[in-house]
Amino acid sequence: MPENRRFLLVRRPHGTPVPEDFSLVSEAIPTPPPGGFVVRNHYASLDPAQRGWMDDAPSYMPPIPLGDPVRATTVGVVHSSDNPDFPPGQWVLGMNALEDYSVSAPGGFTMPVDISIVDSPSKYLSAMGAVGLTGYFGLLEVAKPQAGETLLISGAAGAVGSVVGQIGKIAGLKVVGIAGGGEKCRRLIEDYSFDAAIDYKGKSVEHLAAEIHAALPEGANIIFENVGGDVMDAELLNLAKKARVVLCGLISEYNAPERIGVRNLWQVLAQEATLYGYLVMDYAPRFAEAGAIMAEWMAEGRLRIDEDVQTGLENTYDVFMRLFSGANTGKLVLQIA
Amino acid sequence: MPENRRFLLVRRPHGTPVPEDFSLVSEAIPTPPPGGFVVRNHYASLDPAQRGWMDDAPSYMPPIPLGDPVRATTVGVVHSSDNPDFPPGQWVLGMNALEDYSVSAPGGFTMPVDISIVDSPSKYLSAMGAVGLTGYFGLLEVAKPQAGETLLISGAAGAVGSVVGQIGKIAGLKVVGIAGGGEKCRRLIEDYSFDAAIDYKGKSVEHLAAEIHAALPEGANIIFENVGGDVMDAELLNLAKKARVVLCGLISEYNAPERIGVRNLWQVLAQEATLYGYLVMDYAPRFAEAGAIMAEWMAEGRLRIDEDVQTGLENTYDVFMRLFSGANTGKLVLQIA
Repeated sequence: MPENRRFLLVRRPHGTPVPEDFSLVSEAIPTPPPGGFVVRNHYASLDPAQRGWMDDAPSYMPPIPLGDPVRATTVGVVHSSDNPDFPPGQWVLGMNALEDYSVSAPGGFTMPVDISIVDSPSKYLSAMGAVGLTGYFGLLEVAKPQAGETLLISGAAGAVGSVVGQIGKIAGLKVVGIAGGGEKCRRLIEDYSFDAAIDYKGKSVEHLAAEIHAALPEGANIIFENVGGDVMDAELLNLAKKARVVLCGLISEYNAPERIGVRNLWQVLAQEATLYGYLVMDYAPRFAEAGAIMAEWMAEGRLRIDEDVQTGLENTYDVFMRLFSGANTGKLVLQIA
Repeated sequence: MPENRRFLLVRRPHGTPVPEDFSLVSEAIPTPPPGGFVVRNHYASLDPAQRGWMDDAPSYMPPIPLGDPVRATTVGVVHSSDNPDFPPGQWVLGMNALEDYSVSAPGGFTMPVDISIVDSPSKYLSAMGAVGLTGYFGLLEVAKPQAGETLLISGAAGAVGSVVGQIGKIAGLKVVGIAGGGEKCRRLIEDYSFDAAIDYKGKSVEHLAAEIHAALPEGANIIFENVGGDVMDAELLNLAKKARVVLCGLISEYNAPERIGVRNLWQVLAQEATLYGYLVMDYAPRFAEAGAIMAEWMAEGRLRIDEDVQTGLENTYDVFMRLFSGANTGKLVLQIA
């Protein structure tokens, strides 16, 4: 008889999570609540953000309650339903959990998805998930690029950064990426068609700023910021007049003991730049529209997103830890069924 | 026989200017160049920016050449002219110099002014000059306030800050100002009709942030930033969702040995705020339109701008130094004629 395996958070991690913080249990498959449905999860997104949700700290999402399964975006198939808009067999995307079956309902990010337009349903967790759509809306709707402009990306070899750079090329921009190490820089050029790549490792702000200037003597019309700190300080020394800075992430700060911020804020004033704090959630009503465009670009071979698909709910802890060991390359996805 | 006294820069100041850096000379009154005219200067604006122009350092304006009179915005009367658009007797505003008579020409910021709408032509150097118009366009055109929103101003007792706060009240905003010392805070409330005033002196970022929160528990929809550093860090902890930050000045940095910037940049992302680097020059084509509105507000008693008018070109050095001793209250103006 089929069961519902669930990966529960049973203790709040102290620093790096350990296996004892979790428990894999087996329960009966749930039944649909009034107006809701039950999803058979096929793929789940694994992201650094989930580590934050395990802490008992205020954030843009509430902490995961102890004893609940670990919250995750999943794509799966409606298993049983009390809602005619989500009939059994319908593929759906939603904020569910690391478990075989999730109770779901319309609302929030729950939406039907069309898997006929992608080579794998997992694409709804990468190219057409938060990662891809963060890049899509951040570049096209926040920065509003014009063909011929320049685009400078930090964290460029990351999942978001590599999508932003490729969409930048589709939009007719000159694209320069900043990444850590020669191998990542090689991928920016060879895999993602960036015009230039700069390795930030071991360089002072002044040195890095000079390398950016050499690659972009005309300055950056758009900066897509994933990193912050010294890298951002070097970028701000290369703003073109009236540049737009999309502030998407500050990963250099996430494990820092205190806030770092930026020192070269004066450049924002002197160059009359605009800095946009950006969260993709605002664009949720347009996710389907954007996803269809992303799917078309992928089908045409113009957009590539690398996925690191690992299998088995029983391996969840080990797979999740790939995020922090640097073992994963591309968007990390757990295949559940 | 009338002469043209000119206050020349003869040596680049090292730190605080000394009298030997300047020379007051007397020359013949110039004659109009083809298409140009000569202005009899009546009032000249004295601003901290002029100190910057005395240095041989790149900025948004070229350095004042040694041997030239000190550049200044002036308002005066056309004395002689080779241009029918600027006939003798016409009052004009323009970027001229600290001298009795300046050679001028159409273009740039040179424009005829209507002195019938103001109680003194000096108003074109304060309320309707860069100071007033910086506040006007920065608040109304960059931040685009909606009645009922909240406005937080740093450097609020300064010439720009006090104008921003008063226009904020005209626009129906709740206005809170941050200033240094009890006397300045008293003026914010009593002279400029702010809703609340906060003294930043001697307070940590956390302490100041808590005082802002007490005055604005709903957070700041708009921040008008003149200061930067710790004050801005405290403000950023009080952003309302989707706040707009007008980055107008960072006076805490001007004499600092290195750039300070901000540490709480994360808040810009988390609150989806937008930060606008802002220079008023972009709005030059609309200065006359805005000046007329400002004049109307002044005539109606809704806008007050304090001027510190000192007299005599022979006293220029002493008057200029009032900017740095803290002696001046209100916009510093030198009356030449």
